[in-house]
Amino acid sequence: MRLRFVLLWLSFISTAVLATEADMTERQIPVPIAVSDELKHAITQFGIPTVQQALDSTPTDKETWLALIHSVNTEQKKKVKKMRKQYNVNVEMMNINGVTVRKIVPATLSDKFKSKVYLDVHGGAYVFFAGLPSIEEGILIAHRLGIEVISVDYQMPPHAPSPAALNDVFSVYTALLETHGAHNMFVGGTSAGGGLVLGLMQRLVNENIATPVAIYAGTPWADLTKTGDSLYINEGVDRILITYDGVLKAAANLYANKIALNHSSVSPLYGNFEGFPPTFLLSGTRDMFLSDTVRVNRKLREVGVPTQLEVFEGISHAEYLVAYETPESVAAYAELGAFFSKW
Amino acid sequence: MRLRFVLLWLSFISTAVLATEADMTERQIPVPIAVSDELKHAITQFGIPTVQQALDSTPTDKETWLALIHSVNTEQKKKVKKMRKQYNVNVEMMNINGVTVRKIVPATLSDKFKSKVYLDVHGGAYVFFAGLPSIEEGILIAHRLGIEVISVDYQMPPHAPSPAALNDVFSVYTALLETHGAHNMFVGGTSAGGGLVLGLMQRLVNENIATPVAIYAGTPWADLTKTGDSLYINEGVDRILITYDGVLKAAANLYANKIALNHSSVSPLYGNFEGFPPTFLLSGTRDMFLSDTVRVNRKLREVGVPTQLEVFEGISHAEYLVAYETPESVAAYAELGAFFSKW
Repeated sequence: MRLRFVLLWLSFISTAVLATEADMTERQIPVPIAVSDELKHAITQFGIPTVQQALDSTPTDKETWLALIHSVNTEQKKKVKKMRKQYNVNVEMMNINGVTVRKIVPATLSDKFKSKVYLDVHGGAYVFFAGLPSIEEGILIAHRLGIEVISVDYQMPPHAPSPAALNDVFSVYTALLETHGAHNMFVGGTSAGGGLVLGLMQRLVNENIATPVAIYAGTPWADLTKTGDSLYINEGVDRILITYDGVLKAAANLYANKIALNHSSVSPLYGNFEGFPPTFLLSGTRDMFLSDTVRVNRKLREVGVPTQLEVFEGISHAEYLVAYETPESVAAYAELGAFFSKW
Repeated sequence: MRLRFVLLWLSFISTAVLATEADMTERQIPVPIAVSDELKHAITQFGIPTVQQALDSTPTDKETWLALIHSVNTEQKKKVKKMRKQYNVNVEMMNINGVTVRKIVPATLSDKFKSKVYLDVHGGAYVFFAGLPSIEEGILIAHRLGIEVISVDYQMPPHAPSPAALNDVFSVYTALLETHGAHNMFVGGTSAGGGLVLGLMQRLVNENIATPVAIYAGTPWADLTKTGDSLYINEGVDRILITYDGVLKAAANLYANKIALNHSSVSPLYGNFEGFPPTFLLSGTRDMFLSDTVRVNRKLREVGVPTQLEVFEGISHAEYLVAYETPESVAAYAELGAFFSKW
């Protein structure tokens, strides 16, 4: 078969034997060139851990999990307090249907979202960001879209594995349905939050409950298995996730508990996407969940659901949220707001 | 700054010094798991050349360029003849405004595209696929969309560098404008063809000439410089392009001739995107031009142009065209047809 080499423009090596796996030699990927100065600064100031460094930080038992969770949440709390002050949002803790939520009201409500509510489902690999840390993206969305946000402080492992989180989100959704009506509701989240949003929609469709106007799934963790192409390609490049084989894999097992990782109740990618409302999807060229994001996009389009897929240059997993003061982050949420106001 | 490590869930390594470049250790990227069996088969049957094998096949002078071009075109001609027969399209060679074109009429015209014409601008790194090989994608689009196609056999280096190709495409476009009217026209192409389509739109807007109903830019080579993040990340993973530093860089210099690689007349990414018609963009997770594709998408959205971005799991550069008998390829052109019929 000479043709195969020619298609590669490589007719000079037609006698070579080629591998079917891509051989990656040792090399360095430079800081992305075509991104904002702010993002370049965030990346260089931060640095990128190696895969080995990430593997070495993986918890191995309940005690080390709790220590890591405590440490992560303590730092995240500082960031959230800073953001709350910076954007002057009002945060009120409430209880809805037995679930702790926080109502976030921005200084200025946008005219187009005055009667609307956004149900925020936070990320954090299904283990991090309980309590005040949960409202990181809720604050951003309240402020940037000018919309009232209800952020769910759902239960998580080690003490509450699946299906506790989804049950909590479902309880809050159905309560808001009573008070606001589906035509006034949006739902969204990033990473594990995106996965829960997709899982919630599948449950709503399954139980014949009204779906919201539109949803947002930012780089959703839609597949807990190590299947997506970008989990391999962007290993060591994605500065947020770094590798699947450390914290991610351990967190997936902790969350799924006795459920198989590829069961649709924990990996909504393997479920049904019919009946979904219009969906906004967000990822980046360095995102290890790029494959999850684009596979969800294809699943939705295959059943005729309108979507908007945005992939940002040089952006790692959820970096539009981690580095929220970059023009990339501002642009991402501007697109989200425009998408929500279309429906 | 402890925060930065926590954001990475890596609080255990907070004393480590991190690099700003991503360190890639030597490793193998497996054949993508979550793709069709047909695509897996195409990849494994094919194999993936190493970067070194690709570099070794780079032409170094006019003689080796002509030899490579001849070899590539000879094989591509066989594929095109097979496709022409397989899909039973009628191909007629014509001359429009002094430019060689081929009119491709499918066995069945779709009702919605009966009065329409699709101007096809072929790919091939601005050097390959002159003559009959130019109609590869034109045949697919004629057959799958059920639309009449005019495919431009534009001039190329070594004998005709930029702006010959764009001038030829422009000449054919303006002629079709007279006979068909802008409201009946679509324009599209893959790779270098996608770059030329974007360049054509910039020229039309600049000269106040009517733009078509909608356009298609498949994994467009919109930036001839080595700037896009995915040129680095997907080096050695993208089985079609393999590396920028071989044939691509040499072809870019051959085509640009005396023009700087980042000048908008050869790299439309650096030009103006205002006034563009709705644009359909296509790429994959292994595509070295993923960054070009998503950067064009962002440029268009920033100025309010409606776009649809589709990124396919496990797809290398233009693999939807190279491996045209995969479900991924069928789905890609189905989306294109649906997009065109919306406007």
